[in-house]
Formats: sequence, structure tokens, C-alpha cells
Amino acid sequence: MSFNPDYESVAKAFIQHYYSKFDVGDGMSRAQGLSDLYDPENSYMTFEGQQAKGRDGILQKFTTLGFTKIQRAITVIDSQPLYDGSIQVMVLGQLKTDEDPINPFSQVFILRPNNQGSYFIGNEIFRLDLHNN
Amino acid sequence: MSFNPDYESVAKAFIQHYYSKFDVGDGMSRAQGLSDLYDPENSYMTFEGQQAKGRDGILQKFTTLGFTKIQRAITVIDSQPLYDGSIQVMVLGQLKTDEDPINPFSQVFILRPNNQGSYFIGNEIFRLDLHNN
Repeated sequence: MSFNPDYESVAKAFIQHYYSKFDVGDGMSRAQGLSDLYDPENSYMTFEGQQAKGRDGILQKFTTLGFTKIQRAITVIDSQPLYDGSIQVMVLGQLKTDEDPINPFSQVFILRPNNQGSYFIGNEIFRLDLHNN
Repeated sequence: MSFNPDYESVAKAFIQHYYSKFDVGDGMSRAQGLSDLYDPENSYMTFEGQQAKGRDGILQKFTTLGFTKIQRAITVIDSQPLYDGSIQVMVLGQLKTDEDPINPFSQVFILRPNNQGSYFIGNEIFRLDLHNN
């Protein structure tokens, strides 16, 4: 057991870093900015129900997202430590791409410690919060 | 590495079981129904920003939730395997307690394998999706 006592500050710094890379530039610069956050083989990312595994597949998905501008407002960040030193983060917020309406979203990450004293994304799930009524 | 290939079916069965216990009866019966899903010491649960650790603290929180009836509709369940055999599950849905309006919610779980070939909740975060605008 090695619950990280600093999970909350790590989570908040990570989220700030992640969106600063995700929300700027075009698809290629997004992929470049996020590249070192994913493991070449063992990271999972599910975007609106479409799952990718490994850095190349994940970045490929992010490169081809069809918007040119994104604005984002984070509503709340919840985080918890895991028994193995990983950190779980859930983000609720709102985003607006191009001329689309504002949509709420939910996103969750598992941050795993690497050998350099930093973290990579082991698992990530993103969904727009769209319901039938 | 031991990614569980059956993560999706485990996740869906777990969610059905969890809400069948959570949504029925009063606070005491809710706590009894969920009791065996949490580790006595090492489960984390954050409910609307309030964190509890360990079975007793978590069940105490669930016992004292101030509603008598809850109706729930699940919109989507996303799941992924973790490197250690755990499973991450994110649920988006809508719920209605008593005479309150319908609210969307987001909930995430880390299911960890136990020694009996089943799973317990290592980590859980719940939030109503309430934004400023």
C-alpha cells in the first residue's frame, strides 16, 4: 500500500497541464503536446465510446478531432489516491467547440507514477453529458 | 500486466448490482446491501466533494442521505481494464430523489479483484452534474 498523500495537488497540476496542451493549436500540435503523457503500449483512452490503446492510437484520435477552436470551463475536480501510488481524477466542466452550443462534459483519468518521479495517463475516459431529456 | 479481457461484462454486471442495492429501501437497508462491496480500510468514496475512507465511514455517509425515494436512468457506461487486473467504470445518468427535479450525474469506480474471484470498490466518486449556466 502506498497511497500518495499529495494526490490532490498532483491532480490539479496535471489537469491544468493536460488542458493547456489539449485546447491550444491544431490537431498536430495537440498530439505533440500530449505525447509524453501516454505509455507507448499500455495507456487506454475512450473518447465518446471509441476506445484506443497505446500512445500512437490515442494521439491519432486526438489529431483528427474535427474542430478548430475549443473553449473550456472546469466546474469541479475530484481526486483520490489508489493503493499502488496511482491517482484517480474526475473532471466535470463545460466546453464549446467552434460555433457549437456549450456542452457539459465528464472526464476521468488514472495517473500512474513513472520511473522519473512524474506521472503518465494509464486510463482516460471522456464523454459529453448528453441525455435524452 | 494482467488486463482483464472481460472488463466490460464485469463492469455492467457490477453497476446493475450496485444500483439495485443503492436505490432500494431506506438508509439502513442501503448500507446493508452495499456493505460487502467496500474494503474495511482501503476503499475511498467521495460524494459531492465529501470524502470517506473505509467501509464504516462510507456506509455511514450512505445511511444518512436525506431522501426516501430515488429513481435512476443510466445513459451510458464506459469501462476499461487497468494493468493490475482492476477495472475502471464511468457512469453517466439521470436521477430524481423524492420531489426534486431530475438531475444528471457522473459516477466513477475502480473495481479491484479480491481473493474470492470477485471485486470490491477501491475508489468511487459521485457528482451531480450541476454547472453555473
